[in-house]
Amino acid sequence: MTQLRLGLAQVNATVGDLPGNAALVRERAAAAAAAGADLVAFPEMVLTGYPVEDLSLRSSFVEASRACVQQLARDLAADGLGEVPVVVGYLDRVTDAETQLDVEAAARAGAGRDERGVVGVPKGMPQNCAAVLHRGQVVARYAKHHLPNYGVFDEFRFFVPGRDLLVARIGGVDVAVVVCEDLWQDGGPVERAREAGAELLLVLNGSPWERDKDDTRLALAQRRAREAGCPLAWLNLVGGQDDLVFDGDSLVVAADGELLARGAQFAEDLLLVDLQLGSPTSGVADPQRLPAGVQHVVVSDALPERDRPELPAAERARLDEVGEVWAALQLGLGDYVRKNGFRKVALGLSGGIDSALVAAIAVDALGPEAVTGISLPSSYSSQHSRSDADDLAARTGLDYRTIPIAPMVDAFTAGLSDAMRLSPVAEENLQARVRGTTLMALSNSEGHLVLATSNKSELSVGYSTLYGDSVGGYAPLKDVPKMLVWELSRWRNAQAAARGEVPPIPENSISKVPSAELRPGQTDQDSLPPYEVLDDVLEHYVVGAEGRSELLEAGFETEVVDEVVGLVDRAEWKRRQFAPGVKISSVAFGRDRRLPITTHWREQQSR
Amino acid sequence: MTQLRLGLAQVNATVGDLPGNAALVRERAAAAAAAGADLVAFPEMVLTGYPVEDLSLRSSFVEASRACVQQLARDLAADGLGEVPVVVGYLDRVTDAETQLDVEAAARAGAGRDERGVVGVPKGMPQNCAAVLHRGQVVARYAKHHLPNYGVFDEFRFFVPGRDLLVARIGGVDVAVVVCEDLWQDGGPVERAREAGAELLLVLNGSPWERDKDDTRLALAQRRAREAGCPLAWLNLVGGQDDLVFDGDSLVVAADGELLARGAQFAEDLLLVDLQLGSPTSGVADPQRLPAGVQHVVVSDALPERDRPELPAAERARLDEVGEVWAALQLGLGDYVRKNGFRKVALGLSGGIDSALVAAIAVDALGPEAVTGISLPSSYSSQHSRSDADDLAARTGLDYRTIPIAPMVDAFTAGLSDAMRLSPVAEENLQARVRGTTLMALSNSEGHLVLATSNKSELSVGYSTLYGDSVGGYAPLKDVPKMLVWELSRWRNAQAAARGEVPPIPENSISKVPSAELRPGQTDQDSLPPYEVLDDVLEHYVVGAEGRSELLEAGFETEVVDEVVGLVDRAEWKRRQFAPGVKISSVAFGRDRRLPITTHWREQQSR
Repeated sequence: MTQLRLGLAQVNATVGDLPGNAALVRERAAAAAAAGADLVAFPEMVLTGYPVEDLSLRSSFVEASRACVQQLARDLAADGLGEVPVVVGYLDRVTDAETQLDVEAAARAGAGRDERGVVGVPKGMPQNCAAVLHRGQVVARYAKHHLPNYGVFDEFRFFVPGRDLLVARIGGVDVAVVVCEDLWQDGGPVERAREAGAELLLVLNGSPWERDKDDTRLALAQRRAREAGCPLAWLNLVGGQDDLVFDGDSLVVAADGELLARGAQFAEDLLLVDLQLGSPTSGVADPQRLPAGVQHVVVSDALPERDRPELPAAERARLDEVGEVWAALQLGLGDYVRKNGFRKVALGLSGGIDSALVAAIAVDALGPEAVTGISLPSSYSSQHSRSDADDLAARTGLDYRTIPIAPMVDAFTAGLSDAMRLSPVAEENLQARVRGTTLMALSNSEGHLVLATSNKSELSVGYSTLYGDSVGGYAPLKDVPKMLVWELSRWRNAQAAARGEVPPIPENSISKVPSAELRPGQTDQDSLPPYEVLDDVLEHYVVGAEGRSELLEAGFETEVVDEVVGLVDRAEWKRRQFAPGVKISSVAFGRDRRLPITTHWREQQSR
Repeated sequence: MTQLRLGLAQVNATVGDLPGNAALVRERAAAAAAAGADLVAFPEMVLTGYPVEDLSLRSSFVEASRACVQQLARDLAADGLGEVPVVVGYLDRVTDAETQLDVEAAARAGAGRDERGVVGVPKGMPQNCAAVLHRGQVVARYAKHHLPNYGVFDEFRFFVPGRDLLVARIGGVDVAVVVCEDLWQDGGPVERAREAGAELLLVLNGSPWERDKDDTRLALAQRRAREAGCPLAWLNLVGGQDDLVFDGDSLVVAADGELLARGAQFAEDLLLVDLQLGSPTSGVADPQRLPAGVQHVVVSDALPERDRPELPAAERARLDEVGEVWAALQLGLGDYVRKNGFRKVALGLSGGIDSALVAAIAVDALGPEAVTGISLPSSYSSQHSRSDADDLAARTGLDYRTIPIAPMVDAFTAGLSDAMRLSPVAEENLQARVRGTTLMALSNSEGHLVLATSNKSELSVGYSTLYGDSVGGYAPLKDVPKMLVWELSRWRNAQAAARGEVPPIPENSISKVPSAELRPGQTDQDSLPPYEVLDDVLEHYVVGAEGRSELLEAGFETEVVDEVVGLVDRAEWKRRQFAPGVKISSVAFGRDRRLPITTHWREQQSR
């Protein structure tokens, strides 16, 4: 038996930032080596960040990633880490003729054609790869087989699938390396890993957090470990990247499925695990007689002799359900701001619960000095709106300013009167748009990123003003239904109370009747069903994509179903009609680029 | 030999409008039958419109499409058209166990997993299908094999591929039916069509127009006809659908590649062609001994005896290169407005060339009474800006109004002064945002769709104000670079002159130096390279996705390349940071819906 100390580096990479991500790998590899790791692994596409989307079709970026992984191997050796194998995810491309043939077969199975003439294959044949770095070189390479193309994933669009399984002998232990979706597919590489005699299955992931996922990852890892007949290490990215949040939560299970170690949630971590591997009868008996489609690479045949105590099992404290949501919102917002090069944010404070919650999340993510809240009262704003906003500012300590909007609204009303007769809805929207313009003036003058405060329930039914309260570069509550807005607020206040701190959110903002205050005496429930009903229907109709008959079968009342479905369909239609001009147009002269939002990749870096 | 009169109905379908599209099919099938057609064909997914995107994952929509095609078959028979086979594209789903197996094999080749547990297959297993309708029934069915997943296409995400080739015997002639991308794939169904003895290859398409495509479709059709050894009919949709424009341009070629007929560009058409088919030695010799994977269905064994002269070859007049662009812009804009249920549009008229061109396109598409142009002068607007806008209004006859923005801008400047110190760029953007808010007030009050007037060159380098001049539901020039803006304007004026009409665009708007007029004496070239250089670099960098070194190799000067690449990268970054909150957020609680913009599908229709 060999005791292999495995280091799983759960890191926060940034899409496009090749030098920054490479530096992160060097730093964490050094820390892992210092802690005695025999093998250090990093998540899926750690060098490029994930997801790279259309960057994979820009060949200058692919070449930069290829050069980066080679340089990283040399740099690790120069750092004195050449003897410790390091596994990293990165972006590569098809290079060999045999794989090329395979690619063309895959193309015939269902993809498109390419401008350069290769049938059905993304331009430049990019691949989602893992590399083993050792003694200054890339000694082995694996290309992801299964390319998810559903939900938030578009990989079949951006990558060419790999073909061979990689088994790397590291310290005499045969380690099979696969990437993310490969693990989810029945009959995928796991089956071959067993046939190939792998003694450890290492899975690099870029697996975004979802609410109510239960613990499907652990259950899957346990099942696959049993199928593979060996321990399985599941390593995930962490951090916010545009509209995704990776939650880390890496884990290691034994061949019988026992959970051996589990990493932090929503935070960087270095998980170290001692595994007893490589009995005399296990492993690849004869590398010359492997099953077809398996590449066996000998990296090192034995580990250095060491006399050290086995590490205790590491399992970090787990968050509760609402705590997970809070952590995701806080990390997502903080990383969006930081990765875009901002230092501060601004938002309008109405005294209502949505803006109060966004302010509290922002203060948790960035600190109160980085958050500017502006009270923007109109002539319809109630006294409690202003006092609740004042109270929030006092509780959180954020930068607080007040700008009455009546003079600007009056100037519009007067200035437009000769040319048109303003409708009631136009007057309501005018107030929201004056607020949006005010927030953008602050952003342009002082460099704040503006946060939009709309929640998922409002947005789903179109209870929002385009170019008004929808103004902002980031909408933290876009996927948070109203009932959860209240639940999060109560949860955060209770946390504060339990720690003896001032609860950030004014009780009155939580308890009062919701209103947009765009006309006298208005409340949300003048136009919408009660939120507990609305949110339930939206969960079925929007998230579950159920049809009317399914909603009725689920027991909802006909009137409610028809009202909500009508609101959503009209909102969908309205929102898309008035979407910003940049996104919707008539003529596809060239292909649209679908680049990641916070890419740090700049062509000028290639100089 | 059989003379088969083929009717190709090049129609303008609307996504989601099942009843409207079915009515269109009935009307055109009747017209074709009245003209003696023996077989009438309609384009890809004509019943649902194309592209349906996420609607394919909504099972209530799939079932509605399935019911619609059955009802259409009955309605055609009730219309007295039961004896004329009609081929239509529609949305169906996998239903048989054998195909199910195939789907699972395809899943193993590279897709993802589904919430309902089918590995790697879109929810509900939707398929992009064609049906043959005859005597009140769906008598044969084909599912598209090759699902394009590049450029504007995401079909591998939304559909499950088909497996069998369909050969339908119609009037004794063996007709192979395939869909769009199937034709582009080497080794695709065309090869099997020849083996199966097909005598006519019918290709249903939803093929969007692209600039500078040359005549690749004709060349491909000719090549495939030779490969299949039989005539080929290529039938396309027409009309604007969200950000795509289908250009029609259907065509028929003989087995030797000779062009026999060609439909109108950018307009509905019914193309009738007499084909001499079905020699005694051709066709499927023995349907019992077909190659594997071919389904042979006998619809009718002979055509009615008829004594009629052969139709003359139909080939419509072709547009020139700039004329094609104009037609695409006009059709795209008009259909976007109509399919969204609007009757009129509004835009700001600056006196500059971009807004003048947009106004001229809108007037061509909708008529002058449906277009409102608003002059929105600020204190920096020159006299010629106002007089050029006046001139444009007089030339086109559009609804013209003037609203000076200085009072609203002044109210902001005064109202914000206590809370912040406005930067110069904030002051510039303030003017643009007051204009945007004014246009939206008109839209909310009178129901106009607002048109954004930014061109592709400006948008690419970020020379635009978010929530300002980018306000609007539709941006006709989003994909039109500045040099082409001038070219289109001159082209349209020359057309008018040649017809003895008043040229719509003021000569001074074409010839004057471009300026945003957001500060005194400003011109575009203070901030940007000359447009002839800028557009050329953008073509390589944005459209061609070339890297810096490729741009230098192409002969551009280093300084220019670095300036433009820097502008685009910063603009990309800026645009995405400040994109509307609805689109970018942190937490993927559920899957985003990627619905078509102008869907007419409403759940309530299923009652």
